[in-house]
Amino acid sequence: MLVPLANEAKKAGVKVYHLNIGDPDIETPAEMLRVLKDWKTNPIGYAQPQGDLELLESLKTYYHRLGYGFVETAQMQVTNGGSEGLMMAFLAICNPGDEVIVFEPFYANYRSYAGVAGAKLVSVATVINSGFHLSKKSQIERQITARTRAILYCNPNNPTGTAYLREEVEMLVGIAKKHGLFLLADEVYREFVYPPSPRNGASEGQVSVLGYMQKLPEQIVLLDSLSKRYSVCGIRIGVVISQNQELMAGVKLMGQGRLSSGLVDQKIAAKLTEVPKSYFAKVQREYQKRRDVLYAGLNKIPGVKAPKPEGAFYMMVELPVKDSDDFCRWLLTDFRDHGETVMLAPGAGFYTSKGKGNNEVRVAYVLNQKDLKRSVELLKKALEVYLKK
Amino acid sequence: MLVPLANEAKKAGVKVYHLNIGDPDIETPAEMLRVLKDWKTNPIGYAQPQGDLELLESLKTYYHRLGYGFVETAQMQVTNGGSEGLMMAFLAICNPGDEVIVFEPFYANYRSYAGVAGAKLVSVATVINSGFHLSKKSQIERQITARTRAILYCNPNNPTGTAYLREEVEMLVGIAKKHGLFLLADEVYREFVYPPSPRNGASEGQVSVLGYMQKLPEQIVLLDSLSKRYSVCGIRIGVVISQNQELMAGVKLMGQGRLSSGLVDQKIAAKLTEVPKSYFAKVQREYQKRRDVLYAGLNKIPGVKAPKPEGAFYMMVELPVKDSDDFCRWLLTDFRDHGETVMLAPGAGFYTSKGKGNNEVRVAYVLNQKDLKRSVELLKKALEVYLKK
Repeated sequence: MLVPLANEAKKAGVKVYHLNIGDPDIETPAEMLRVLKDWKTNPIGYAQPQGDLELLESLKTYYHRLGYGFVETAQMQVTNGGSEGLMMAFLAICNPGDEVIVFEPFYANYRSYAGVAGAKLVSVATVINSGFHLSKKSQIERQITARTRAILYCNPNNPTGTAYLREEVEMLVGIAKKHGLFLLADEVYREFVYPPSPRNGASEGQVSVLGYMQKLPEQIVLLDSLSKRYSVCGIRIGVVISQNQELMAGVKLMGQGRLSSGLVDQKIAAKLTEVPKSYFAKVQREYQKRRDVLYAGLNKIPGVKAPKPEGAFYMMVELPVKDSDDFCRWLLTDFRDHGETVMLAPGAGFYTSKGKGNNEVRVAYVLNQKDLKRSVELLKKALEVYLKK
Repeated sequence: MLVPLANEAKKAGVKVYHLNIGDPDIETPAEMLRVLKDWKTNPIGYAQPQGDLELLESLKTYYHRLGYGFVETAQMQVTNGGSEGLMMAFLAICNPGDEVIVFEPFYANYRSYAGVAGAKLVSVATVINSGFHLSKKSQIERQITARTRAILYCNPNNPTGTAYLREEVEMLVGIAKKHGLFLLADEVYREFVYPPSPRNGASEGQVSVLGYMQKLPEQIVLLDSLSKRYSVCGIRIGVVISQNQELMAGVKLMGQGRLSSGLVDQKIAAKLTEVPKSYFAKVQREYQKRRDVLYAGLNKIPGVKAPKPEGAFYMMVELPVKDSDDFCRWLLTDFRDHGETVMLAPGAGFYTSKGKGNNEVRVAYVLNQKDLKRSVELLKKALEVYLKK
């Protein structure tokens, strides 16, 4: 655990630049914050277990505006962030010992949610040299066993920033169809795709699984969250969407079991339809600039390799070190430049395959451009010292 | 499911008196509501996974004021309501197939949380004639097997309203100690005990498991929630407290896995130390009056038996019917008096033993006294009609 080391450094007066976590510094939309100022409901009682009706209607409107007019509120369960949605999906789909295919490197917390259901994550490798895009169909199919219940993927991807091409999403849909598997799509970074990119066509944007839901209604599950999209990580509101009625009945039963998501958070979230397009345009431009700053800066450091991420606000970066966990610790305990250091997430945490990711780190670009430039400078200086040790 | 029937009745213009759920109508304290008006934090980002630091400190102060000065923030995990705390406790303590002893009738959602962990609830009977107080030690010990991991009890009790005597709590502590079991105490109704009562001494109040935590530090787990205490069911804030470091390490890991509880809800909750004692005194007086109205009214209906509950805001009531589920449905679908009816929770839902609770209902007294009187009148009239069918 690096957090206690970071806390110690801060207590000693060291400034720590956090490239390790995806907690955005972008402002929450005014339309959402206004809910707090205008609050009248008293007492603050339970919402409906499935979700506050106003929020369910707003979510429906949001998906309809995206072009998916078939989405109905009956197909939804509001969740305590994307986290609870993932846990519910694992519990609804897997018996202990069942397997779910994921693409390595993957979001570390998938392990927690799988763990609750006793499910086993089976990973298929993706590699830095191809920008962490998906491997061939045959390599994925090779991992399917009698216990495989689902394929889970994140698009755009945390931790790699990869936005999958249409042909990649269609390949996954095809595999799910052929083998009768659930396809779980984590699309919490949907709005964060930065055109133009050599691999992801400028006009394409994010390729949502919603475009395939009607073709595979019993097997596709969308996992979504407002946290990143509206810079509201601290309001814990996500949603699970599927046309599979049996699955949703199970998920809704779990929703009833924990009674309700937060009423205030849901009322804030319900304003999502009032957030103007200009908000996203501005946010997207800002993240794109940050990505470019980081991408350019990192690739100038000798021995550092950073593929250009197409979306989200993460990138997996190769460093000229053998044990990035040791390096990340050392940054917090030993390295200082004018009383400052930088915090990174060691790569191994995003892999289950032993030995993988040891020369990688995940970097989140949720700091302003000036701080990002300083972070890159700190990393460069740190590597110079560390490699001479 | 009765909720769709109630919704249909309402759509047809029928007024439904809800005695079926424990969603209080008492106002949320002004000290808490003020947090919304005064909100400044922007963006609304993640809180610490263990809990917002301000809230953890407030909780510590609250338990210290109750007289338990040993409670430290390191022993806590803030949860999404009491619900998540129960789920985390089951997951931390039980492997699939492990058993947890509960006292029948019990809070129906215990089943959901046990289910997530694959744990089996083993019930020990309590009966209406003794006010649902605990049975003898030997009867409880008879249910202990090699798979038993814990005893879970709710004090004051949902659904019975029973406040356990000091000797009962001590008996459970003794059994846990002797057999090396965890003792899980759900005390979300702690403040709701109404003296004087013939069975529960006037001066005693609620007997908290915290008074025994230092004697059995490795085995006692407190499950708590602010929902009922401050009439904030819609802010999803609870807490798990234990001195067992290994257990809490597991619970905190689950906390990290789902990232954070809601920041706004936690900041509201953090004001709990500012809520004056007069708030509770007023709330307690109001609930006591409601209990008395309901107790007197129900016992005047021929064939109805209602023991006097000592705490919480529920009572289990015996009705002169064979199938209370059928009766509760009929109330919603058929019975009308001046366009009004009453909704009750069928007793069988609070039992796992087959056939038990079929002549009982759970009643919550979270309506004002006038509405409670009308509800009693409706029930009386309904029974007259139903029994002549």
